[in-house]
Amino acid sequence: MTLTGEMLIGAAARRGSETAFQGFDAASGAALEPSYGGATAADVAKACGLAESAFTPYRATTPEVRATFLELVASKIDALGDALTDRACAETGLPRGRIEGERGRTVGQLRLFAREVREGSWQDVRLDPALPDRKPLPRPDLRMRMIPLGPVGVFGASNFPLAFSVAGGDTASALAAGCPVVVKGHPAHPGTSEMVGRAIQAAVKEAGMPEGVFSLLFGVGDTVGQALVADPHIKAVGFTGSRAGGLALAKIAAARPEPIPVYAEMSSINPVLLLPGALAAQGAALGKAFVGSLTMGAGQFCTNPGLLLAIPGPGLEEFVTAAGAAMGEAAAGVMLHKGILAAYEKGVAKLAGTAGVERLGLGQSGENRATPAFFATDAATFQKTLHLADEVFGAAGLLVRDGDAMALAHLLQGLEGQLTITVHMTEEDEALFAAVLPLLETKAGRILINGWPTGVEVCHAMVHGGPFPATSDSRTTSVGTLAIRRFLRPVCYQNVAEYLLPEAVRDANPQGLWRRIDGVMTQPS
Amino acid sequence: MTLTGEMLIGAAARRGSETAFQGFDAASGAALEPSYGGATAADVAKACGLAESAFTPYRATTPEVRATFLELVASKIDALGDALTDRACAETGLPRGRIEGERGRTVGQLRLFAREVREGSWQDVRLDPALPDRKPLPRPDLRMRMIPLGPVGVFGASNFPLAFSVAGGDTASALAAGCPVVVKGHPAHPGTSEMVGRAIQAAVKEAGMPEGVFSLLFGVGDTVGQALVADPHIKAVGFTGSRAGGLALAKIAAARPEPIPVYAEMSSINPVLLLPGALAAQGAALGKAFVGSLTMGAGQFCTNPGLLLAIPGPGLEEFVTAAGAAMGEAAAGVMLHKGILAAYEKGVAKLAGTAGVERLGLGQSGENRATPAFFATDAATFQKTLHLADEVFGAAGLLVRDGDAMALAHLLQGLEGQLTITVHMTEEDEALFAAVLPLLETKAGRILINGWPTGVEVCHAMVHGGPFPATSDSRTTSVGTLAIRRFLRPVCYQNVAEYLLPEAVRDANPQGLWRRIDGVMTQPS
Repeated sequence: MTLTGEMLIGAAARRGSETAFQGFDAASGAALEPSYGGATAADVAKACGLAESAFTPYRATTPEVRATFLELVASKIDALGDALTDRACAETGLPRGRIEGERGRTVGQLRLFAREVREGSWQDVRLDPALPDRKPLPRPDLRMRMIPLGPVGVFGASNFPLAFSVAGGDTASALAAGCPVVVKGHPAHPGTSEMVGRAIQAAVKEAGMPEGVFSLLFGVGDTVGQALVADPHIKAVGFTGSRAGGLALAKIAAARPEPIPVYAEMSSINPVLLLPGALAAQGAALGKAFVGSLTMGAGQFCTNPGLLLAIPGPGLEEFVTAAGAAMGEAAAGVMLHKGILAAYEKGVAKLAGTAGVERLGLGQSGENRATPAFFATDAATFQKTLHLADEVFGAAGLLVRDGDAMALAHLLQGLEGQLTITVHMTEEDEALFAAVLPLLETKAGRILINGWPTGVEVCHAMVHGGPFPATSDSRTTSVGTLAIRRFLRPVCYQNVAEYLLPEAVRDANPQGLWRRIDGVMTQPS
Repeated sequence: MTLTGEMLIGAAARRGSETAFQGFDAASGAALEPSYGGATAADVAKACGLAESAFTPYRATTPEVRATFLELVASKIDALGDALTDRACAETGLPRGRIEGERGRTVGQLRLFAREVREGSWQDVRLDPALPDRKPLPRPDLRMRMIPLGPVGVFGASNFPLAFSVAGGDTASALAAGCPVVVKGHPAHPGTSEMVGRAIQAAVKEAGMPEGVFSLLFGVGDTVGQALVADPHIKAVGFTGSRAGGLALAKIAAARPEPIPVYAEMSSINPVLLLPGALAAQGAALGKAFVGSLTMGAGQFCTNPGLLLAIPGPGLEEFVTAAGAAMGEAAAGVMLHKGILAAYEKGVAKLAGTAGVERLGLGQSGENRATPAFFATDAATFQKTLHLADEVFGAAGLLVRDGDAMALAHLLQGLEGQLTITVHMTEEDEALFAAVLPLLETKAGRILINGWPTGVEVCHAMVHGGPFPATSDSRTTSVGTLAIRRFLRPVCYQNVAEYLLPEAVRDANPQGLWRRIDGVMTQPS
């Protein structure tokens, strides 16, 4: 595929006339061709208008048609072959194996949502049949199903150029729900975005979907994103990025004449609890494994383990020694772009310069590379120094080591909401784990035992979400099939004749759905 | 029960020291004893702190224990007997039969949520078993369930002193979800509120629930409500009332350091489409029935039919004549309180004084009573006069009569979100109905055929919600069992040992739940 630097607005491709920009080779800093023109306000309005025009016909498609379309998008992305991997590696600095794995996850996610669309329980159908003889009043015939919200604005994230970008989880779940999507591509990987965008555009055409089902806009700065969230046709927003960015979009959405939901996945330091039994049993091994998780992908995972909490005791010293040693061998990492590298270096310098914070280990350094870093402090310093709980995006970890179980619970209580909390434990830690589990549930969307939070499975039971500020809406997840629910709302049909009803709520159940009938879950016959 | 004028804060009852107020006999305007003292900021903080303390033990109760508690609340409200009906009739001016029906709905709702808690599918359990041999990476064991958000602030509504007030749908669904509740009682029915509040307080004690599960605060003005929404322990808000009130609360909630969801049911004019076949078949009967729905309960239903849309043709004149005649016989209505009566009279005067608006009928008048009123206009006037689409809370209806099917769709397209849209039709209107149904779905939470929107069934398939500004969150309903979802969020457990897991997600399935296992809905064995 020859990259053109054009935006994709419905079936058209055209160059934006606002400020031009280019992608960069993250490792070398060299600019990559072509240049991309930014969208004007009129481009945003055009894409959103086309999305609105596509909404009614697109949501009217059968589950089979929509599922087939999602599978076609997956196939077209597969067909991009090595060119996509090459470009994504160059634009992000992420290693080849990682990008290949991420592409597998991305197409797997589209196919999972295709199966979910066919399975159909996301429609949440409920039928309460009429009770004409009920006293004192008869009950009318009532039927409920979920319908899509409308066009969705999606923001590509820089740290997952495929799985959280143009055809990532937000796009896949919105399209699955029946919502057209307008993507604002992340300016750090425009070439990757154009390739994937053209794959979707081709699938839209080949599947005979209305053209407005998908558009891809480019732009540097905030104006394109702001216009997208403010556009009256947009009914929900999906975003993965910084806390400041997510909050800014939420503010715009709330100030609209018609406020809309913003699903922003923003900020998490993903605490790891090192309980006494686990430290005693394998302190050194945990130290080494921690550094592996911390430095993976240059620490640029939303679920990167940035905070360790430990009660002093046997094995903690071994943990620290092993982590320090592993850190010394950890390679300097290419970060996604210069801005992220600069922010990381600033964050690490702030940690290093904080009174009461000690550096336990430092990775290797290199030009235009980030040096992994591992620090420690005590509970009192952590609690009085608010910025120590802020996310430093990258491979920087902080160990808080003192106190007892009570102090640990107190520390946890003071933390903001998180995507994940990990617990390393053995049988002897069970009482402590059981005591803090209810607290962990209120603090995070996912609780892991004896693993590392990096790596998010795309499945039915996954929650990639959590209380504020991990996300702007703790009631949801941005990964896994439950993510479809973000883009749905219920509608009730009262006394509508069978043949005028949507298929999902007809007595005949032509879609073969699981439904609650008079409150009882009922298998399709 | 002797009313004391006290607030109920956990297990305690004490008089508020802020501005005192009294209830009034809505019909006579006479003040009713006792006087109620308003809550201080410290009272709000105390109630919310107790709610927070109660959260962990309350949500840990088994479904059976929680269901039994809800049933006990219902029994205690039943046991209030005629005293409750007498007081509620006096404070609201609503007729005895209406209040008796509303009490039946209120206790029925509590018992329905008790059954829903036991049934358990609201926990939405999903299990994705480990795949240790999967390539390239094994899949961990992942399990998901819904847990409650935390303490919920509930605002009593004036128009349903039982079903949308202290023990109404918001309270019932929040308690069912496992959330403690702090209610701000509506100052128009403090005696009714105290009675119901004491019934809940007694049930909390008798069932051995932690005291903070329920508190009831009083106050005139905005300060108590503002403090409740701003309290850091409160994690969600339920509100039924005016658009201005709902928007003000949403603004406070969004500006918190940790923003929280506000479920505000605010404003709807509940359009009724009179299609040509229905008018031709029974124009006069529809006109009479319309007035019955419009004037029921002095027009103070959230789903009151305030707007009629008709295409001129056979039967429309009969509709107008019959509606005008029925209107002439319609009694003047006692409204809930003086403020609502004044707002109604102002709204009607504004309608009457609008150029292009004609009065078609007027009900009877009486001192301290509202006179039902029925107006008509044309589509052009309606579309250029924005305030004609505003809700006039009370028995005022507006008929828009001209244009064709295309004009009708255009009118609908221009309307804001609604709780309900009603369609009167016969077989000959089917093509028109089918053509506008997708539009109706995007405009309302409930679509009714050949009925009237007043009267909301409490069941599984009900949606009492709708796009903004009908509610602040179209993804939800405030009536029916789906309302429980407003107070839940998902949590995922990764590689947690069976015996350390919450019951709902254990392999053994001790709660007998329907669960999705590897994506497949699975019946409890």
